[in-house]
Amino acid sequence: MSSHPLEELFHPQSIAVVGASPTPESQGYSYTDALIKAGFRGAIYPVNPKYQEILGLKAYAKVSDIPGPVDYVISSVPAPQVPAMIEDCGGKGVKVIHLYTARFSETGRKEAIELEREVLRLARKHGIRLIGPNCMGLYYPKQGIAFWANAVQTTGPVGLISQSGQMVGEITGTAALRGVYFSKAISYGNAIDLNECDYLEYLSQDPDTEIILMYVEGLRNGRKFFDILRRTTPHKPVIILKGGRGRAGARATASHTASLAGSTQMWKTALAQAGGVSADSVAELIDLAVAFRFLPPLVGKRVAVGGGAGGASVVAADECEEAGLDVAPLSDEFREDLKRRGISIWDWIGNPADMSIREDRAFSIGDLFALLAPRPDYDLLILQMGGGPPGRGRWYVSVDDYLKQYKLDEIRIKPLLAVLADQAVNSDNYDDESMKLVYELRKRLPQLGIPFYPTVGRAAKAASKMVDYYQRRNGVAIHKSLSTAIA
Amino acid sequence: MSSHPLEELFHPQSIAVVGASPTPESQGYSYTDALIKAGFRGAIYPVNPKYQEILGLKAYAKVSDIPGPVDYVISSVPAPQVPAMIEDCGGKGVKVIHLYTARFSETGRKEAIELEREVLRLARKHGIRLIGPNCMGLYYPKQGIAFWANAVQTTGPVGLISQSGQMVGEITGTAALRGVYFSKAISYGNAIDLNECDYLEYLSQDPDTEIILMYVEGLRNGRKFFDILRRTTPHKPVIILKGGRGRAGARATASHTASLAGSTQMWKTALAQAGGVSADSVAELIDLAVAFRFLPPLVGKRVAVGGGAGGASVVAADECEEAGLDVAPLSDEFREDLKRRGISIWDWIGNPADMSIREDRAFSIGDLFALLAPRPDYDLLILQMGGGPPGRGRWYVSVDDYLKQYKLDEIRIKPLLAVLADQAVNSDNYDDESMKLVYELRKRLPQLGIPFYPTVGRAAKAASKMVDYYQRRNGVAIHKSLSTAIA
Repeated sequence: MSSHPLEELFHPQSIAVVGASPTPESQGYSYTDALIKAGFRGAIYPVNPKYQEILGLKAYAKVSDIPGPVDYVISSVPAPQVPAMIEDCGGKGVKVIHLYTARFSETGRKEAIELEREVLRLARKHGIRLIGPNCMGLYYPKQGIAFWANAVQTTGPVGLISQSGQMVGEITGTAALRGVYFSKAISYGNAIDLNECDYLEYLSQDPDTEIILMYVEGLRNGRKFFDILRRTTPHKPVIILKGGRGRAGARATASHTASLAGSTQMWKTALAQAGGVSADSVAELIDLAVAFRFLPPLVGKRVAVGGGAGGASVVAADECEEAGLDVAPLSDEFREDLKRRGISIWDWIGNPADMSIREDRAFSIGDLFALLAPRPDYDLLILQMGGGPPGRGRWYVSVDDYLKQYKLDEIRIKPLLAVLADQAVNSDNYDDESMKLVYELRKRLPQLGIPFYPTVGRAAKAASKMVDYYQRRNGVAIHKSLSTAIA
Repeated sequence: MSSHPLEELFHPQSIAVVGASPTPESQGYSYTDALIKAGFRGAIYPVNPKYQEILGLKAYAKVSDIPGPVDYVISSVPAPQVPAMIEDCGGKGVKVIHLYTARFSETGRKEAIELEREVLRLARKHGIRLIGPNCMGLYYPKQGIAFWANAVQTTGPVGLISQSGQMVGEITGTAALRGVYFSKAISYGNAIDLNECDYLEYLSQDPDTEIILMYVEGLRNGRKFFDILRRTTPHKPVIILKGGRGRAGARATASHTASLAGSTQMWKTALAQAGGVSADSVAELIDLAVAFRFLPPLVGKRVAVGGGAGGASVVAADECEEAGLDVAPLSDEFREDLKRRGISIWDWIGNPADMSIREDRAFSIGDLFALLAPRPDYDLLILQMGGGPPGRGRWYVSVDDYLKQYKLDEIRIKPLLAVLADQAVNSDNYDDESMKLVYELRKRLPQLGIPFYPTVGRAAKAASKMVDYYQRRNGVAIHKSLSTAIA
């Protein structure tokens, strides 16, 4: 079992929401509402001197008025009220305060910076840990903790550490549409007490978390962070999106979370040396999470691509190569095999496999990949499904019927990435039956354990970075065993 | 009026579909069906000796059996039957044959290459022009010509020239979801007779086409092509996606359209010198079409971004800078103006404008941009709408209600790009009312003449390339008037 200090802080028996409110537009309402809807099983105490009851729960004037113990406090009161609130919590045995409360150092204003220092001093005096300030806090679906009403309740093996709260909602919500669910996510804002080092170290040890995603604007303790990262990446992939890469971005990180963005080049070098996987956008962060979630460790970059028509095949080849994959030609041996089987396009079909050239409509990309998959020629397969059923609506009546042609059971003995164009799901034919089939298909693939991407380029980029990660990781492992052997 | 030879070829009074069939899975059925559904007003003649009638139309055994004149022939018979078919058309006064028929030089097979030469020789003998072979042919919605059943029927100012037929369907279909419609599109395949030069020259002169998109795998006549391109780009933007950029892609272009892909670096240099706009992916080709379709000529790169929360603002800044835009800080003068107006965050708000920091909820990004738009400080605005209504479902009941906060009428005096995250439209809550609102919003914005993008990065990249185009174009114009002045 993990004995990291955050383990206790993240498992409260009771949560008080200071600044709770019955006004739906207020954040104090949102926090209370979200805890109820997420199914938190401990006690929820709304705190607000103006009300007797909030959202059906008895309200208290202050934390010290609550009869039972209070482990965890969410603060949505204005910044000037925070010092008194901390003093009040001090006598109550509160372990941690999450300060949604903002307008501290991120404003760049002198008095706000001083107030932030005072807040930290008071928390330390009372032995209370701080999450934030200026952050959305904890999302922990297994414990019924969330900070927005429609948070996904399914749990999964991915952990997320983000300086931005909005990113937690966006990343967990978008990833869920591709079958990726989360163990825990934390939005940590200005990080004046608990910071990126604590959160990374915790998830590194957390048995529920197999893959770690991070959105970082600046580091409070760079040396320590890269140290923890270096110790984490040999056993868990850590995928990081760095915010504040340019001049304007650096200005924005200062006014967002009072972070110093640092030099991008230094960041990239340090990240690579520590074995971290770098994402260039929110979309890529999710693409990488999808790959690590569903694919076995990828060991090589030789890719076979197929299923699209001619233009899509040409573009697929370009995108795979530009992502660093090796689109190796079909082997002579494999062509001979096709010829023996009477496949008329044995000499013409290539990699990518343009299936629009086939003469025998019964010979599908599933058939081709089923012959290719057991061979040692390729390390992974990218299957172009196009838009899915709608384009061919007249030929398919169900997702099962549609999927048969791909012989998924036979071809997935090789690591397999599917490509499902966004185009179809964005159809403006909203009430079309085929749209519903696409939606079903997008749920079915992750259920089958198959990751899907909107373009070949995005699939290829994710796969290529994943190979880099495992090659480095295996290299490190080899290096270690060598050192042991030598020692 | 255009007197380009293609003008006549693209306005047939009658079309014969050779190889037409009543079997829905066949391409001969598809062509006949597509012409009927697209509402072609001339005569449609199915040609197939096996049938008396196809899709309710009288069928003929061969083209020469058709009683009236035949201007345009679509061939979907197998390659070996093409020579006899051309001879048959020769006596009938057919002006152009579009050869959907494939399996010529793209197979790499000797006899197929020889057959292709023979086809060209016979067509020249009879004075018949050829589109293709190995292509989907013409999409011309105003004339009711299409090659797939659910082709968009709305017309617009964008022309498309594509070596791939599938790309025509994908590009026109996807662009329509963002309010961009087409004048004409041509899929031209192996281009043994009419080639990229003819099509580009035609669209260059075509009064219905204001913006030209191209998907090119290889050039039949490079020198002439760049010559036409150079003469076109000073009055019409030409946006080109090059297929076959790498080694595998070059192999794929050979087996797709028998094209020689050529050196990527030479291509890029020549394209830039001729004033063409280069797209790196299908998505970017469409992004650029959306920008050129809806935005006025962009003259500078100073961008103001706003509407997202903190993390999104940081990422927006990075993506804009990486796209080459200048995310200039707010001016002191503008801050003073905000202060005078009693905006409490006057000293803290930045560019990008993180609207999550505002204390006065009534002060919206619409209010901020409405103050900024009349000033000379910025050249364009990027408005982050997030996911649109769903995320805030409880606060909005209609698209009109939702849009009010953005004060579009006031802020669009500056070139304006909206960002609507795909996340929302990909919600798996298919039956949610809010999903329908997002769909409505995605239709409404183009109706209002406002382009939208799924991410800030994509909006910024399109805007930046558009500025480059106009700066070059204006530079050329200045250079020309200087030359005139000197002469």
